[in-house]
Amino acid sequence: MAVSVPAKSQGPRPKGVRTRESVLRVAVDLASVEGLDGLTIGRLADELKMSKSGLFAHFGSKEDLQLATIEMARQIFTEHIVQPALAQPEGFPRLWGLCNGWLSHVEEHVFKGGCFFTAASLEFDGRTGPVRDAIAHAMKKWLSLLARAVEGAKQAKHIKKSVDAEQLSFEIYSLAMGANWALHLLDDKTALQKARVNILQRILALATPSCPPVKRR
Amino acid sequence: MAVSVPAKSQGPRPKGVRTRESVLRVAVDLASVEGLDGLTIGRLADELKMSKSGLFAHFGSKEDLQLATIEMARQIFTEHIVQPALAQPEGFPRLWGLCNGWLSHVEEHVFKGGCFFTAASLEFDGRTGPVRDAIAHAMKKWLSLLARAVEGAKQAKHIKKSVDAEQLSFEIYSLAMGANWALHLLDDKTALQKARVNILQRILALATPSCPPVKRR
Repeated sequence: MAVSVPAKSQGPRPKGVRTRESVLRVAVDLASVEGLDGLTIGRLADELKMSKSGLFAHFGSKEDLQLATIEMARQIFTEHIVQPALAQPEGFPRLWGLCNGWLSHVEEHVFKGGCFFTAASLEFDGRTGPVRDAIAHAMKKWLSLLARAVEGAKQAKHIKKSVDAEQLSFEIYSLAMGANWALHLLDDKTALQKARVNILQRILALATPSCPPVKRR
Repeated sequence: MAVSVPAKSQGPRPKGVRTRESVLRVAVDLASVEGLDGLTIGRLADELKMSKSGLFAHFGSKEDLQLATIEMARQIFTEHIVQPALAQPEGFPRLWGLCNGWLSHVEEHVFKGGCFFTAASLEFDGRTGPVRDAIAHAMKKWLSLLARAVEGAKQAKHIKKSVDAEQLSFEIYSLAMGANWALHLLDDKTALQKARVNILQRILALATPSCPPVKRR
């Protein structure tokens, strides 16, 4: 499912030209705050001060809108977290780039209401259907990316070869998820920095003497 | 906010007498699967095959219903997890009782859709109002109970006195939250057992020689 930005907007739109992409960016923020299930065409139309019929031209149903919103969130996530980390050398720098990038994206409010995918995951985990499947697919890809980065750190001899990559990546993910939750539900402003320290300690406890130092925190 | 069980049910009810308590138990399961925000009086009436007016007699609004459902979930959680753990001796047994009890309540489907509070937390963390406040209050109580159990284990000299209780309790909570998520979203049947091993390893890494052995897993 590709998100395309139309060269020209269709039909009358208030407040100037809005592209499908800019509509979806608002949808992503709205869903990150109010939940993906609350993201109806009517609710989004209110937020954008657009007509519902204008939005129906882009998204035929609530489900289409939700799926397009997940895809936009995935693109934003890739751009802000995955690509900068993959530009780091394989090994500890790339692994830490993914961890630190994730924590930073919550601190920097890349999604208005915290981690879009963590919220959507917990919202849809008890359901069935294409929306749940799209969220589960995105999360599996993120976990396997983390696990590959752990494997890369083993191959680069930055961490011990006895490390269970799936296990460590899951621990990292859980600590990050807990921090996102503590920040947003409990308003614990120190949660992300505490998670940053915890995750770094967990990785460094498994490091070899040839592990390079942390470049930035 | 107290949840009372009326001695007599009021008005005609299909399928025999249903008490407020049994209605709320259904509401808790429904919310754990479909989300607390989807829990309307209409949706619950459908599920129970009751009239909406019958439910309105108990709960004047969606918000009242949500708050009463949270309180019922808290009672169920206390009965299944907190009370059995508090019956254990202070120290490592009580701390492990809380951790293991939490993991077991997900395995045993005490709430149909996994951990009621984890789901509700992520659903309401970006909002304001009494429902979010009630969830945050319940979660803070759980985290402080875990932290007190860690302190108890320090005082019993079962774990090192240098342990940061708030930090360790948060790590435990995050690992459990991650496991609940992996079970329900990714359908990873091994997630809870992996978390059980991880959490036990984390605690035992901080244990003293006088820490008693684990009684059950």
